[in-house]
Amino acid sequence: MSAFTAEIIGTMMLILFGNGVVANVVLERTKGNDAGWLTISAGWGVAVFIGAFCANEFSGAHINPAVSIAMLAAGKLSLGSTITYIIAQMIGATIGAVLVYLFYRQHFAATRDPDAMLACFATAPAIRNNLQSFLCEVVGTFALVLPIFLMVTPSLIQGDVPVDSDPRLGLGSLGYLPVALLVFGIGMSLGGTTGYAINPARDLGPRIVHALLPIENKRDSDWGYAWVPIAGPIVGGTLAAVAFHLLK
Amino acid sequence: MSAFTAEIIGTMMLILFGNGVVANVVLERTKGNDAGWLTISAGWGVAVFIGAFCANEFSGAHINPAVSIAMLAAGKLSLGSTITYIIAQMIGATIGAVLVYLFYRQHFAATRDPDAMLACFATAPAIRNNLQSFLCEVVGTFALVLPIFLMVTPSLIQGDVPVDSDPRLGLGSLGYLPVALLVFGIGMSLGGTTGYAINPARDLGPRIVHALLPIENKRDSDWGYAWVPIAGPIVGGTLAAVAFHLLK
Amino acid sequence: MSAFTAEIIGTMMLILFGNGVVANVVLERTKGNDAGWLTISAGWGVAVFIGAFCANEFSGAHINPAVSIAMLAAGKLSLGSTITYIIAQMIGATIGAVLVYLFYRQHFAATRDPDAMLACFATAPAIRNNLQSFLCEVVGTFALVLPIFLMVTPSLIQGDVPVDSDPRLGLGSLGYLPVALLVFGIGMSLGGTTGYAINPARDLGPRIVHALLPIENKRDSDWGYAWVPIAGPIVGGTLAAVAFHLLK
Amino acid sequence: MSAFTAEIIGTMMLILFGNGVVANVVLERTKGNDAGWLTISAGWGVAVFIGAFCANEFSGAHINPAVSIAMLAAGKLSLGSTITYIIAQMIGATIGAVLVYLFYRQHFAATRDPDAMLACFATAPAIRNNLQSFLCEVVGTFALVLPIFLMVTPSLIQGDVPVDSDPRLGLGSLGYLPVALLVFGIGMSLGGTTGYAINPARDLGPRIVHALLPIENKRDSDWGYAWVPIAGPIVGGTLAAVAFHLLK
Repeated sequence: MSAFTAEIIGTMMLILFGNGVVANVVLERTKGNDAGWLTISAGWGVAVFIGAFCANEFSGAHINPAVSIAMLAAGKLSLGSTITYIIAQMIGATIGAVLVYLFYRQHFAATRDPDAMLACFATAPAIRNNLQSFLCEVVGTFALVLPIFLMVTPSLIQGDVPVDSDPRLGLGSLGYLPVALLVFGIGMSLGGTTGYAINPARDLGPRIVHALLPIENKRDSDWGYAWVPIAGPIVGGTLAAVAFHLLK
Repeated sequence: MSAFTAEIIGTMMLILFGNGVVANVVLERTKGNDAGWLTISAGWGVAVFIGAFCANEFSGAHINPAVSIAMLAAGKLSLGSTITYIIAQMIGATIGAVLVYLFYRQHFAATRDPDAMLACFATAPAIRNNLQSFLCEVVGTFALVLPIFLMVTPSLIQGDVPVDSDPRLGLGSLGYLPVALLVFGIGMSLGGTTGYAINPARDLGPRIVHALLPIENKRDSDWGYAWVPIAGPIVGGTLAAVAFHLLK
Repeated sequence: MSAFTAEIIGTMMLILFGNGVVANVVLERTKGNDAGWLTISAGWGVAVFIGAFCANEFSGAHINPAVSIAMLAAGKLSLGSTITYIIAQMIGATIGAVLVYLFYRQHFAATRDPDAMLACFATAPAIRNNLQSFLCEVVGTFALVLPIFLMVTPSLIQGDVPVDSDPRLGLGSLGYLPVALLVFGIGMSLGGTTGYAINPARDLGPRIVHALLPIENKRDSDWGYAWVPIAGPIVGGTLAAVAFHLLK
Repeated sequence: MSAFTAEIIGTMMLILFGNGVVANVVLERTKGNDAGWLTISAGWGVAVFIGAFCANEFSGAHINPAVSIAMLAAGKLSLGSTITYIIAQMIGATIGAVLVYLFYRQHFAATRDPDAMLACFATAPAIRNNLQSFLCEVVGTFALVLPIFLMVTPSLIQGDVPVDSDPRLGLGSLGYLPVALLVFGIGMSLGGTTGYAINPARDLGPRIVHALLPIENKRDSDWGYAWVPIAGPIVGGTLAAVAFHLLK
């Protein structure tokens, strides 16, 4: 499997499981209706775990443009590879969002709250203030990427890996358990304000799908907020790469 | 222990723990009454973990006809072994379902809702539409089997294992933790529509037990739905084997 | 540390954490009041994990007479060692129960329900029927001990270990994670009827402490039920040893 | 990265995630509002995991003065290093508390209960009685430090490590999973009375930040209680070091 395909499949799995748990909790008449924030946080933690170990062998399982850009900033990934990774991540996120819609189609039809329907695609702030939300996405992504960098292979830490020689983060199958716990923790601890996109593809891809799909009774796709979960994670991931460089 | 016995014990444990958690949550006057979907998802995740590591050394712990058929489709299991595995899985699921009934007998007697009693045996859709439910079971099982294939031994991936040389998936005791997390995630994210059978034996065996046992005040066993959690998982598992073949 | 001391400390930790979570959930004015069955199941799972890895290096961390008796039945532990282990487990459980009372003393004083107070020491059935409860404790303990036997060192499985040569189960620190998940699962799936003692020392030791301590407004210690969580686990553990012998 | 910097970053992460989950659960209009004690316990468990594996390679990840003082009492850390570690931990806790405030700033503004706002910084007893709370903090920290000592490297247990030769606890990245489970368990089982500071820096640093920050509508910082979560953990950790010395 090529890195390109692996990033598509990993990100598709991420969104299928991640937005799937949101749909199960917020849409009406589902079995998991109203199962609470702990379920959403655990579901996204497992979603990252599954997406990551599916892609790991083949692409290093970035499944997040903020991680790929941080790898670029750290001098571990070329610009060309970074762009390739991001395109694959966007494709995967889009497919995943379509799958969630097809999977929960009847429950979308049974749901009356248009905000709940949008939440099955993209994030939205609990209290609207784009600058503050931007700050939260920066902090959340920083708190994702710095620990990942601190747990990866010594070769990455020692900085002796030439660009693109190996884009993988060097974690085995069970090795993604810490990442899953990290994302679980970000959800519980730092998810309370913006719903923690911490991944531009996770938000933009499904938001486009929300805009295009003919969902009955849907609201607009909240494009005024769309830049926040793109810019915040990119800045947060880059800051983490800089912090890592200063600390190592 | 033979593979046949191991699949019986593993699947028995799967159903004892899996349907046990449903009984604890949905039957009346239990200590776990109304403990919610997160508990059911976690319970089934642990149920797979326990069933799998009990059988692992001896049969590879398929404990699911959809997995065995996917192994057949991948050219790793002969037709004869596949049939043997499925028979053992059906026997184990049936024993497990009887045990759950005997265990929670007083709480079945204390429960007034016949749908809740049936839920302790077989799955049912949240919104009835057999074609849509079939699609959900296909997707759920695909999302189970493809990741399992992607995490197993390299020899399986490289395709150089002769049929039946070793039906085991090659995961150690702690190695089933990712599978447990995967099933936990399927419950949280993809369990909201049909209650995620994703395993024909898990549904059919207990459904037969429900039909045969003299449970007071029980409803019919919903045979009109019974084909969905059989056909869906078989198709989903086979599609995962095909996808794996195309991707590897 | 001797095996005797290790079993005391391990079982003390088990009860401190296990009955501690019950106290936190059922006593009044605690921070975890009404946190639900999932919390109790998770708490006991972690309690076993902590108790087990504290004692593991030194005694094999049985911390449960049903496990020691199963080891005796399997021909791995001498009668003398078994008795020594059980005495240590009873001492540890008693100390643990006293600690939980001292820890939550103000909340015992603030609690009006005498059943809730007893629940912080010993188990009680959801629906009273001693024979059925006995059956549940047999099944629950069988479902604890058989998987433990199936996950331990090959030397134990191959049966070539002379009695008492090494009473340890052969699990490392992280190796107790499967046991913790197993107990977590027993709580969620099989805890709904009797509250899953599955350990005679866990029930009898604290029950004696409940009888002796001058707790204001306490009820009787329910001695009519006390034999169930002793006999059930012993029978269940022994049956698991027999089953293991037949299966291996 | 120096041990000093590592302890700052590790403790900062601990507080960002730990007090972050409290803020998400207790402040108004957050996505995790009212998510319950299980979420808080899980959040702090993951917080320790993240803080610990970030610092592990470089300082041994004490991220808690009670652990450093226990290492001093066990003769593994010099007085000078202990003081250095504690200063770093206080700095990290302070930064973390400021970050949580900035992160949840809008939700502090939306929250009317001053006790809830203080809870996002420092602990408070469920029932006020400083002596009893002190006892609880002693027991909770003892139950944290003794198991940690029992799971660390054999060289630490064997006592042949010269002072300061290596302050690290010797746990790898996944090796902190048992510590995370331990803290998760302390929250569920022993967190019900005082909210389990079990770490002087975790409580004092954020309490100072609460006193200094211009938070609208805030209450006093409850300085009459402040000595309890400092003295209790120090005594509990030291007792654990003594117990370890007696037991080993």
